[in-house]
Amino acid sequence: MQNSSVEVVAPVPSSLQAARTPAVLLDRQRVKNNAERMLEHARSHGVLLRPHMKTLKSIDVARMALDRRHGGIAVSTLNEAAYFARHGIQDIQLAVCQTPSKLPSIAEVSSRCTNLSFFIDSLEMAEALNGFAKATGAQLNVWIEVDSGGHRTGVMPDDPCLLSMATALGPQVRLCGVATHAGQSYANQSAEALAQIAETERKEVVRTAERLRAAGFSVPGVSAGSTPSVAHSRSAEGLTEWRPGVYLAGDLFQAALGVLRVEDIAVSVLATVISHQRSRGEIIIDAGSLALSLDRSTYGLGGDDAGYGLVTDLLGRPVYGNLYVNAVYQEHGKLCGISEALFSALPVGSRVRILPNHGCMTAAMYNHYLVTEGGEEIVACWPRTNGWS
Amino acid sequence: MQNSSVEVVAPVPSSLQAARTPAVLLDRQRVKNNAERMLEHARSHGVLLRPHMKTLKSIDVARMALDRRHGGIAVSTLNEAAYFARHGIQDIQLAVCQTPSKLPSIAEVSSRCTNLSFFIDSLEMAEALNGFAKATGAQLNVWIEVDSGGHRTGVMPDDPCLLSMATALGPQVRLCGVATHAGQSYANQSAEALAQIAETERKEVVRTAERLRAAGFSVPGVSAGSTPSVAHSRSAEGLTEWRPGVYLAGDLFQAALGVLRVEDIAVSVLATVISHQRSRGEIIIDAGSLALSLDRSTYGLGGDDAGYGLVTDLLGRPVYGNLYVNAVYQEHGKLCGISEALFSALPVGSRVRILPNHGCMTAAMYNHYLVTEGGEEIVACWPRTNGWS
Repeated sequence: MQNSSVEVVAPVPSSLQAARTPAVLLDRQRVKNNAERMLEHARSHGVLLRPHMKTLKSIDVARMALDRRHGGIAVSTLNEAAYFARHGIQDIQLAVCQTPSKLPSIAEVSSRCTNLSFFIDSLEMAEALNGFAKATGAQLNVWIEVDSGGHRTGVMPDDPCLLSMATALGPQVRLCGVATHAGQSYANQSAEALAQIAETERKEVVRTAERLRAAGFSVPGVSAGSTPSVAHSRSAEGLTEWRPGVYLAGDLFQAALGVLRVEDIAVSVLATVISHQRSRGEIIIDAGSLALSLDRSTYGLGGDDAGYGLVTDLLGRPVYGNLYVNAVYQEHGKLCGISEALFSALPVGSRVRILPNHGCMTAAMYNHYLVTEGGEEIVACWPRTNGWS
Repeated sequence: MQNSSVEVVAPVPSSLQAARTPAVLLDRQRVKNNAERMLEHARSHGVLLRPHMKTLKSIDVARMALDRRHGGIAVSTLNEAAYFARHGIQDIQLAVCQTPSKLPSIAEVSSRCTNLSFFIDSLEMAEALNGFAKATGAQLNVWIEVDSGGHRTGVMPDDPCLLSMATALGPQVRLCGVATHAGQSYANQSAEALAQIAETERKEVVRTAERLRAAGFSVPGVSAGSTPSVAHSRSAEGLTEWRPGVYLAGDLFQAALGVLRVEDIAVSVLATVISHQRSRGEIIIDAGSLALSLDRSTYGLGGDDAGYGLVTDLLGRPVYGNLYVNAVYQEHGKLCGISEALFSALPVGSRVRILPNHGCMTAAMYNHYLVTEGGEEIVACWPRTNGWS
């Protein structure tokens, strides 16, 4: 299977002015601050942190984000699991329900770390795992996924199948615990609503663990978390770990949800002005739907329509007010309502940085980060992994 | 600069049942048919074809799509240009306006093929090119981009700067011609409206060429085309080449515009059912916003809301009626309104194929295609290039 081939192989540029555009930037200090703020939040609530790597998919970031009391991470694909296992992470939770045909690959990656675990949400899958473990001798580690209101995958806490699922796993499959993700937190903005969602998420997954324990099962782990619900949590009672992810990068959507400030957003896209259309009051940049993603999650949140991202200066400062990328094409982004002063400030060839709506989607379009630390200097280049196989 | 690292390196699977999911599939025969239909359309209108590689970004596809009378392609990034140059394509048109800081990279890639050309749309850039060519001795080849109604980049046909731009290029920069892209064709559905847009596109770019010629400039090339406008063109008089791209892959949006039939769509995403949520009538698959893209271009076209793609069977046949991916999360897709019969037909672990809204965006999430030819067998694995640097 061949890897993505980037053909213009260049040395790492020394500064933002020398970098090819579009490029994705990561501010190291901001990632560190975001990581430490969340670690402190977890410590203060007496819970461990299992940072989810699905946003930045980088071992360099994982090393900054790890909770040394825990050591584990969550991932969203088997490819990420293999990448982080190769880089020495021992406790990797693949936080997505798996199917029988994926078990051989899972067993293969499992052999490269101490504890690769994954989610299941059905009796059929519990039975299939038992069969696979018996047939191959593989040690499988699973979490029963619980639906705490996100209504995606997972069993309801009072699902009649819950206990039979745990039984069906058999002696060779280890039940790591129960896990949930309050996906509904992404549809709410008020701090109070998010705090209530966090409380529901916590109570539902703890209740599920207690049902299993009452029936005699060992349930060592109780895992919960989305970035918005964790950030607004007032209690972690009964939980063993929080599992947020996008807080490390931050984005306009998380800022709108009150998770962090716009000035904490660590990920941005460096772009070049490629055309002035004075008669229409428009500037065109070389970052379009591939460079920024089509994510519109900030749309309809009550504030300005942030389009496809907020335009800032070369240092990531929002000096142009509410200047957004209003439209995107595959390799073009359009900024509208440009004044004469702004045309002068942003001549053809000048550079801007775009703060994205959704860090996970934007970062996914790149295979490395140009790492900055507040200034124009590029201090490192961090690879990230992408794709599935 | 490190490449994207896909960590789970596996041999090419022999069949769709053995492939890891999600994966992107390309039907070789359909690509070939789409390529030949467009070549025949161009031949019948007496114009050459310069296929745009921005959708599939694959040398294997380029070889099927090339017009042997012409030999050239269009690309959307410098990375694509470098990739295709390395694979022996000699005439490569980088169909995006460039800026001064990009010239050294362009000159570098230019040295690897006979004719790398690119777009400009301003007097400042024409002057910068002249200066760069004088200073470095580089041979630069440019197209003046014309706005024929797409209102993205480009000069208007009667822009007062047009002639001074051509003059400012100086003796070392070769004017390849004028080029346009009727981006407005993507906002129209009726065949008559698209035919009119094609006619406007043609007339505007030809008129621009004539203005330049009347002033004494040599304008060898007159390049036009978007897939919808080319497909609905009734005349190519005055044009030297058409430059469509997405017709090779096809997608639900192009089918809605009447460019091709749903059964001509060559690109699809292979996915696995990972969860049944019977109480809500929902099926969850392992293809979400990263595997399918967030493109919603079919939304509001008057037919069904196609969500994030049409669900078909393993062989790509729309046997489930209007079953769409109604919601996406990063690694999950949700199918709603599932009947008992459909739960039985699509058990956990079963496989489906999703026809995408927009082939360019969906294919961009992968670094290779699993190539099929109507059946379950995987007959090849074709790499594609992604990214910018």
